[in-house]
Amino acid sequence: MFYFDKRLQYPVKVENPDPIYARMLQQAIGGIEGEIRVCMQYFFQGWGARGPTTKYRDMLLNTATEEMGHIEMLATAVALNLEKAPATLQEEGAADGVVGAVMGGGNARHTIEGMLHRHLLSTGMAAFPANCEGVPFDMSHIYASGNLAADMYCNVAAESTGRVLAVRLYNAAHDAGMKDMLHFMIARDTMHQQQWLAVIEELGGHQGALPIPNSFPQEKEDTANAYNFYVSSVDGTTPEGRWTQGPSLDGKGTYTTYKNKPMGEEPVLGPARPDSGAQLEQM
Amino acid sequence: MFYFDKRLQYPVKVENPDPIYARMLQQAIGGIEGEIRVCMQYFFQGWGARGPTTKYRDMLLNTATEEMGHIEMLATAVALNLEKAPATLQEEGAADGVVGAVMGGGNARHTIEGMLHRHLLSTGMAAFPANCEGVPFDMSHIYASGNLAADMYCNVAAESTGRVLAVRLYNAAHDAGMKDMLHFMIARDTMHQQQWLAVIEELGGHQGALPIPNSFPQEKEDTANAYNFYVSSVDGTTPEGRWTQGPSLDGKGTYTTYKNKPMGEEPVLGPARPDSGAQLEQM
Amino acid sequence: MFYFDKRLQYPVKVENPDPIYARMLQQAIGGIEGEIRVCMQYFFQGWGARGPTTKYRDMLLNTATEEMGHIEMLATAVALNLEKAPATLQEEGAADGVVGAVMGGGNARHTIEGMLHRHLLSTGMAAFPANCEGVPFDMSHIYASGNLAADMYCNVAAESTGRVLAVRLYNAAHDAGMKDMLHFMIARDTMHQQQWLAVIEELGGHQGALPIPNSFPQEKEDTANAYNFYVSSVDGTTPEGRWTQGPSLDGKGTYTTYKNKPMGEEPVLGPARPDSGAQLEQM
Amino acid sequence: MFYFDKRLQYPVKVENPDPIYARMLQQAIGGIEGEIRVCMQYFFQGWGARGPTTKYRDMLLNTATEEMGHIEMLATAVALNLEKAPATLQEEGAADGVVGAVMGGGNARHTIEGMLHRHLLSTGMAAFPANCEGVPFDMSHIYASGNLAADMYCNVAAESTGRVLAVRLYNAAHDAGMKDMLHFMIARDTMHQQQWLAVIEELGGHQGALPIPNSFPQEKEDTANAYNFYVSSVDGTTPEGRWTQGPSLDGKGTYTTYKNKPMGEEPVLGPARPDSGAQLEQM
Amino acid sequence: MFYFDKRLQYPVKVENPDPIYARMLQQAIGGIEGEIRVCMQYFFQGWGARGPTTKYRDMLLNTATEEMGHIEMLATAVALNLEKAPATLQEEGAADGVVGAVMGGGNARHTIEGMLHRHLLSTGMAAFPANCEGVPFDMSHIYASGNLAADMYCNVAAESTGRVLAVRLYNAAHDAGMKDMLHFMIARDTMHQQQWLAVIEELGGHQGALPIPNSFPQEKEDTANAYNFYVSSVDGTTPEGRWTQGPSLDGKGTYTTYKNKPMGEEPVLGPARPDSGAQLEQM
Amino acid sequence: MFYFDKRLQYPVKVENPDPIYARMLQQAIGGIEGEIRVCMQYFFQGWGARGPTTKYRDMLLNTATEEMGHIEMLATAVALNLEKAPATLQEEGAADGVVGAVMGGGNARHTIEGMLHRHLLSTGMAAFPANCEGVPFDMSHIYASGNLAADMYCNVAAESTGRVLAVRLYNAAHDAGMKDMLHFMIARDTMHQQQWLAVIEELGGHQGALPIPNSFPQEKEDTANAYNFYVSSVDGTTPEGRWTQGPSLDGKGTYTTYKNKPMGEEPVLGPARPDSGAQLEQM
Repeated sequence: MFYFDKRLQYPVKVENPDPIYARMLQQAIGGIEGEIRVCMQYFFQGWGARGPTTKYRDMLLNTATEEMGHIEMLATAVALNLEKAPATLQEEGAADGVVGAVMGGGNARHTIEGMLHRHLLSTGMAAFPANCEGVPFDMSHIYASGNLAADMYCNVAAESTGRVLAVRLYNAAHDAGMKDMLHFMIARDTMHQQQWLAVIEELGGHQGALPIPNSFPQEKEDTANAYNFYVSSVDGTTPEGRWTQGPSLDGKGTYTTYKNKPMGEEPVLGPARPDSGAQLEQM
Repeated sequence: MFYFDKRLQYPVKVENPDPIYARMLQQAIGGIEGEIRVCMQYFFQGWGARGPTTKYRDMLLNTATEEMGHIEMLATAVALNLEKAPATLQEEGAADGVVGAVMGGGNARHTIEGMLHRHLLSTGMAAFPANCEGVPFDMSHIYASGNLAADMYCNVAAESTGRVLAVRLYNAAHDAGMKDMLHFMIARDTMHQQQWLAVIEELGGHQGALPIPNSFPQEKEDTANAYNFYVSSVDGTTPEGRWTQGPSLDGKGTYTTYKNKPMGEEPVLGPARPDSGAQLEQM
Repeated sequence: MFYFDKRLQYPVKVENPDPIYARMLQQAIGGIEGEIRVCMQYFFQGWGARGPTTKYRDMLLNTATEEMGHIEMLATAVALNLEKAPATLQEEGAADGVVGAVMGGGNARHTIEGMLHRHLLSTGMAAFPANCEGVPFDMSHIYASGNLAADMYCNVAAESTGRVLAVRLYNAAHDAGMKDMLHFMIARDTMHQQQWLAVIEELGGHQGALPIPNSFPQEKEDTANAYNFYVSSVDGTTPEGRWTQGPSLDGKGTYTTYKNKPMGEEPVLGPARPDSGAQLEQM
Repeated sequence: MFYFDKRLQYPVKVENPDPIYARMLQQAIGGIEGEIRVCMQYFFQGWGARGPTTKYRDMLLNTATEEMGHIEMLATAVALNLEKAPATLQEEGAADGVVGAVMGGGNARHTIEGMLHRHLLSTGMAAFPANCEGVPFDMSHIYASGNLAADMYCNVAAESTGRVLAVRLYNAAHDAGMKDMLHFMIARDTMHQQQWLAVIEELGGHQGALPIPNSFPQEKEDTANAYNFYVSSVDGTTPEGRWTQGPSLDGKGTYTTYKNKPMGEEPVLGPARPDSGAQLEQM
Repeated sequence: MFYFDKRLQYPVKVENPDPIYARMLQQAIGGIEGEIRVCMQYFFQGWGARGPTTKYRDMLLNTATEEMGHIEMLATAVALNLEKAPATLQEEGAADGVVGAVMGGGNARHTIEGMLHRHLLSTGMAAFPANCEGVPFDMSHIYASGNLAADMYCNVAAESTGRVLAVRLYNAAHDAGMKDMLHFMIARDTMHQQQWLAVIEELGGHQGALPIPNSFPQEKEDTANAYNFYVSSVDGTTPEGRWTQGPSLDGKGTYTTYKNKPMGEEPVLGPARPDSGAQLEQM
Repeated sequence: MFYFDKRLQYPVKVENPDPIYARMLQQAIGGIEGEIRVCMQYFFQGWGARGPTTKYRDMLLNTATEEMGHIEMLATAVALNLEKAPATLQEEGAADGVVGAVMGGGNARHTIEGMLHRHLLSTGMAAFPANCEGVPFDMSHIYASGNLAADMYCNVAAESTGRVLAVRLYNAAHDAGMKDMLHFMIARDTMHQQQWLAVIEELGGHQGALPIPNSFPQEKEDTANAYNFYVSSVDGTTPEGRWTQGPSLDGKGTYTTYKNKPMGEEPVLGPARPDSGAQLEQM
């Protein structure tokens, strides 16, 4: 179960509110690279973790709980960036010292467009769980497969795209408070990338954990096709790289190349059934 | 641009059609662990790939094109498993030798439930691009961040959950043809896991590629918080592991632990504006 | 604006309630082939219809209003099929004369699975605007392009898939009341297919209405590629048919075939920008 | 920011695991009546709360934090109900003492259908953030309007449908542990209904808080149409009730009835523009 | 069944077409606070209404039918606001007297951005069933629980957020025709708030209708936890209010506070099964 | 199975990159009128095609494969239009010769809004599979009914709305390269409209193929209601046209009109069950 502290994990300050930047921050809340995703992903992985030790479950819950605080920070940042935003098309942004300065001469109408209306029409100047284009976050993006190693790679993927997004937001920021908040979040993403990869190391690294799942007896797979790069270009040219030669990373095979060609036949389906709603010509 | 061959990449044969297994196979077509996802993900990553070399773009397009053929194989497998499936509630499955045998005494009504109606009502006994519960695949699951290393980890995540799914389908299969098809697909997933990780190796491995993006000057992040595991449990207990001590995997820090506590203050938002549609008591 | 009559457009009677059939009927309410779709599609086409005459607008509103009554009939049919359905896992369906008979020896647990729980857990034994697998209807399926001829073909498509669905439901029905309701709905779908095609006839048929939009000067398109069937098979074989020879249906060209091959070059994108969050290796 | 305790808020015990009941519990996790919804709704309302006092914000965060613990309880209940569930179609449920007893003679195939595959194929026998039919929870269901009174009614709506669902799950349960867990959750829903209504009382009740938003000067609305029930039935019959006579609940008007009829005209839209992609006949 | 009148329920006039305002109006059509929602919600509640009297059903159908006319009014308002909108990036908005004046010096490019392209690219200058950001309305927002009191609170929630939206649109409007249309709609929302609350009054008000559902014997719930506010803040501070003391609104309890703490234990899940696709280390 | 050629099907050149036009092109990639839709629709129709001849299957696969190349062209066009787009709010668009010229004096902030952020924040200046407003493409738009004629009309609908969109994009384009690319795509859409209609001709045209499905014995439908236009207007006025008189297009009936009126009765549902979670007053 859970507790909260009214104070934020890290300071969130906005000197020059900017409703367009509020919009961009939404991507870090409700985008697929955002904080709702990692928070919920780690929770569901943790709540379903099975195995002889509870330490992975515990680790997941620790970090999921930390991420809750990140959603809170970003929601606060959005609300602060919407302070003094214009609420009507008539309102003169230029007449509002702060907004006018930020907008670089833009006017209220321009700003409202930039806000894409939802902060104005639906939330009363606050964050909502959608991305920067208003597409609501969809929980199908919570990856929790029941396989610990697969889940760790899902988490590395999430923290990698997450840190890329945070860097882009940092580069786009013009407010010192926002840069400060993001330089903290970027650091946490660094650690979280390291953290999930450390679990894979602990599970044996490339050689012990791969191929995922490692519980499937590898002799049951089509071993002749487990380490060859399939070339699908019509002219047969091959992009050479680490993946076309040398020992495989799991130490269990050797990379080769193979020119893709049909091993199967043209499929033959039965005719449509009389009662299946097809055209007569299909029967 | 693209060409096709009428023949399948690998043989797809179904000796004993089973409409419930057809349903399960849908997860490998339109589930988030499925083939539409990897196919489209690799294409969009390839089409947007930027950089001095085109070899990563080429590699991505080769494998994306291969995956198109996997969707085709699975769609064929679904259609073949639906041959002879009952189309009405009255139909006696038991009276149909093949279906009856597979169903183990089940009747048509039972089978129709297992099919969840859509194969019967919407497709006329064929595959459709949704998961095993009929939830349509949603292209927001195509991860293509513009950062090559982040994308590679997204791909490892996709192939890891994909191979886990393929193994579960293999374990659930009872038809020799289906087991044969899956033992090939499992092998291809093995290679694809190896392939994307090989790119990361080529990009410098843990030490060269991390933290992602490696183009952000690391001194700009909050370095004091880049390698410490945050403990969020109220009693302060820490799950110990590779992530709490020793050098970090990127070789740029040392794992430590830190008891999470508020560094920020309780946030203060301005009052609601008079024209913002709030209650009077909020103004 | 609108009025309603408490009575249904056509009688809806259910002699032997069947919760599994209730589930199947949901496809005709909230499936992409269903009645919410046609109702809302015709309304939005009508409300946005532009042109010198209002008769198409009027026709669309007449039929949209009729379709509202079809949603009502189906929602009623679902509720009636859920009468006496078991509400708990313990309940003995077999002990309930009507349900037991319908179920053919099935028990309450079996029936609840067939219902997929939502009629039990979310609606209290009533219809809801989702398909037979519980996927909610999504208004992106309302096609209203602003081009009258395109919209008419969208409507023919809707009524064609709609009548296919109604026929499948008719074939699956075992209750005389349900068959009677559906034999009426199938007839209405017949008319609606005829109706939208009649508009295209009135707009000039194949020769006057095509290519859609007919307002684009056809000399501006790449006329050399406007009537040739592109062959994409790697072996160059062509499926011959009405589309490979003879005058085109619009009377403005002649069908030919063409072996697809690249006319363009390999695309070259610029490198990633320094501030774009890519890996250093991409810059 | 947040902390967690490894222990659950309330005991969750399952004596007789039942994978079908696990499926039903998913509705309370990821259904629109479920716990993710209330948790996230209260958080976003709290994080965006504006006004002279922070007590509503604080109250919202307290209850949101409590609801996090409810998601955790339910996720645990799902995982426990999936213990010993069959993982293959061949597996004999009947041979497994516990499952066989629960299933009442059902077999593994039957159970797998009831599970709808996702617990088997996607999660490795654990909960996921979707409803009982696998439809992922969609954050558009988080209502946070920026108007405190509107939000409170959204919360009453959520807790009312939530308690209805919990009661249905209680009635469907057969396991003493599940009944115990739910009898606690039902009680919490009772309090939460009372809690949000208490805020409305504090804000002035029906007379002070209504119409929402109470900040809009009521003389600006069309006062002649603010308290009359519009009758839309074609025969003009009126369903009489508290809403057709007597003083309105806000004390600011008197309920009357009005026969709906057009006050507007038939709309006239301009013709389609030449460059708008319409048919020539629309221009 | 249904009838329509070509005339609108209330006049819709637009003197100065404004494509950006057209965009904002979309929220009232296809937003979760909009008219499609209330229309369909009342219909599905009505069609599924069970009970000894039909008057609630009748009332719901009357108001649902009225709301159909509101969708029509708004769709008309959108189409009228798009008259004379620029259709190409080259077009000079400033050269168009009407648009130029409205735009305050903006040009065609600016306006097209504000329109977010869909009115230009997808509809030919007409409304579509999506919100102001183009997110399609999703029928999962139709709440119809089968419990009359719960549904009434869902309706109050819908009309409260709906009136908040209408007020925001009124405040943002600059056209007299739009203000007139909205001042009518705001009045109707006032009545509809009153109407659904009147049903609750008729059902016994707070004391008779609560807790919802009132059909569950309250002695079966955990009565010790049915009227106490749970405090989840780590420092134990309590936000005091009507919800922490005094008799509960339903007259059946007394509000108290309780410091949230674990009553349960740390959950223990079984190990992963050998055939479940987990890593070996989890078994 | 499939092959690719690195070269594009048709040249894609962008002389003056325009990030706002990139945004508009997204509609042709991930909009419901776009290329992902037709590509996947033709594939799934082909993979599930049943009948005595494989030529329709072959034709579908040929064109589906062609459409893959169109997605590729458009994705390339988006990436090229994003070259030199501003990546930060501070960046001076006007200072960048190319962009500044295109923007007509706009600045970086303005451009970033027009891009709606996702090309900046999520993709690193590349295409993604969503429409011009960022709504991800949803595979429920893949229509494949199992009835060949119904599917052909779905395809005509797709190519009709697709060509309307392409024409709108052509009209909005200012770059010679983009106009060239689109004039090719518009021509292909012309052919594809002709192609699917040619199949219907081959299947018997209006008289042979209709009503769809033609496998349902027409004497089983309610023949009295199969060719009459239902008038739902309250005043009984009828919009006259080809659909109200003369022989029907299928040659099997005569168009007439009918004034819609109730043939059914007011529905009567049973009371709510005691254990169904309804209010007591409903039982």
